[in-house]
Amino acid sequence: MAEIRRMIKIGYLGPKGTFSEEAAILYMDGRAGKITNCSSLEEVFAAVADGKLDQGVVPVENSTEGAVGAVLDLLAGPFDLFVRGEVYLPVRQSLLVRRGLELKQVERVCSHYQALAQCRSYLRRELPEASLAECSSTAEAARRVAKSSRPWAALAPERAAEEYDLQIIVPVANDYPDNVTRFWIVGREEKSCDPGQKCKTSLVFGVGDRPGALYAILREFAVRGINLTRIESRPAKKNLGDYLFFIDLMGGQEQPEVREALRKVAKVTFGMKILGSYPIWEAPDSGISPGTAGV
Amino acid sequence: MAEIRRMIKIGYLGPKGTFSEEAAILYMDGRAGKITNCSSLEEVFAAVADGKLDQGVVPVENSTEGAVGAVLDLLAGPFDLFVRGEVYLPVRQSLLVRRGLELKQVERVCSHYQALAQCRSYLRRELPEASLAECSSTAEAARRVAKSSRPWAALAPERAAEEYDLQIIVPVANDYPDNVTRFWIVGREEKSCDPGQKCKTSLVFGVGDRPGALYAILREFAVRGINLTRIESRPAKKNLGDYLFFIDLMGGQEQPEVREALRKVAKVTFGMKILGSYPIWEAPDSGISPGTAGV
Repeated sequence: MAEIRRMIKIGYLGPKGTFSEEAAILYMDGRAGKITNCSSLEEVFAAVADGKLDQGVVPVENSTEGAVGAVLDLLAGPFDLFVRGEVYLPVRQSLLVRRGLELKQVERVCSHYQALAQCRSYLRRELPEASLAECSSTAEAARRVAKSSRPWAALAPERAAEEYDLQIIVPVANDYPDNVTRFWIVGREEKSCDPGQKCKTSLVFGVGDRPGALYAILREFAVRGINLTRIESRPAKKNLGDYLFFIDLMGGQEQPEVREALRKVAKVTFGMKILGSYPIWEAPDSGISPGTAGV
Repeated sequence: MAEIRRMIKIGYLGPKGTFSEEAAILYMDGRAGKITNCSSLEEVFAAVADGKLDQGVVPVENSTEGAVGAVLDLLAGPFDLFVRGEVYLPVRQSLLVRRGLELKQVERVCSHYQALAQCRSYLRRELPEASLAECSSTAEAARRVAKSSRPWAALAPERAAEEYDLQIIVPVANDYPDNVTRFWIVGREEKSCDPGQKCKTSLVFGVGDRPGALYAILREFAVRGINLTRIESRPAKKNLGDYLFFIDLMGGQEQPEVREALRKVAKVTFGMKILGSYPIWEAPDSGISPGTAGV
């Protein structure tokens, strides 16, 4: 009898043609699996939590627009999921229209709000009169433009042009050429890092109202030579001035100095959650690991 | 001869009826002045830099959605303006429609993307089928809904209902009841704080790729007993992993310990800019100062 290996089921924010789909394909790297689209980030998280999907691929930060607040909030809050991996995807926003439409005729630009934000200066300069319409994803914007008979354009990945039979009139509309989005792979179980494997660990915590509280926390990492690659604050949603902090650090939880630092930090913070340890991303073919610079 | 006192000219992100207008009125607190609307945040900054306006009132963070990235980027980058003051404004997003329309008939919700984000759970729960349209401001959304004959709704301040003759069908649609937005007052010159006046100082800097760099910076404040009330990272727009940090601290630049700490921090950071020292906000009638909790 042939051995049946269960195919891994992975979800992303669809519809087909989003950067999240591209990140999911990149993450799978040719391994057998089923990649499914979901209609919202919440749906990705819920489907993984319920066991309908094994893992989800969700955007966490972009080099132009910063953190994806909704994903950080979902991880800190309602869903008890863990980060199992990361993917860095170069992101080019193209301007897509129905065939024959010229740039100067465009009256409305549709896209996800992060994509609109990544192209803010371009749009203001080249299409100052056009209205901006927020869609649930870049691919949804392409779908909507393809369906409409009006002079609309979508900011979306180049590959969405093929998917929705649109024409690329501006190949790169993002304001910064080195636009990169980082994705997290989320799952129900923590992944442990193999000994010797280069890992990152991510965590979230609240700090009390005490001068020097954050300093005292960073100290626990600094004195142990642990390199923080990212620190992000999010409002704790109650009072303005109450923040949650998200930290990424180099190293896995099984390393004694990391374990010790996390134990100390847990004592002086509120509701600390270790989001997971996971292998740092290495771009295929390059061996280069982005996002490992210290802060 | 009567003395002629020049009226101060203040700009905000219009059109009329936005929360920014409300914040400008609150800031003026009955003093004589002219409050003018601008069509974008960039226009507010440009008009103040050019001398067409004396000051601008711009949103900087919200208790639900976090930092207003565009404002931080404008202050760190193209415009050489300073922070002269702050205002905290309680923010209630109301759902407004043309008279007679019922909630269940709403097919599209228009608003500024921050307002849509503040009401994300509400919209998903109550109007899961409605499309979301991003407008340049909450008041622009109200204007658009008033003009259209279609079953649309706007998330906007209650007072926009009067301005655009709309009906309030949901008075409070924001997901968190204690929704507050903090505004900065920006101007061409730095304001100096009066001796004995309770002040905050805001600054921005880049850190090098060195483990413990941020820790070493926070140390300069901690050892001098200086309370940080906020720390925010923004992408430096070049490589993912390069960040700018925005810090607010309690105290004015003229205080010896603050001056000393800033001098030290300038030496170990890149492109540090002191955005200004300014009196901390005290809510009228209450004497309560929000946003003074330490991190």
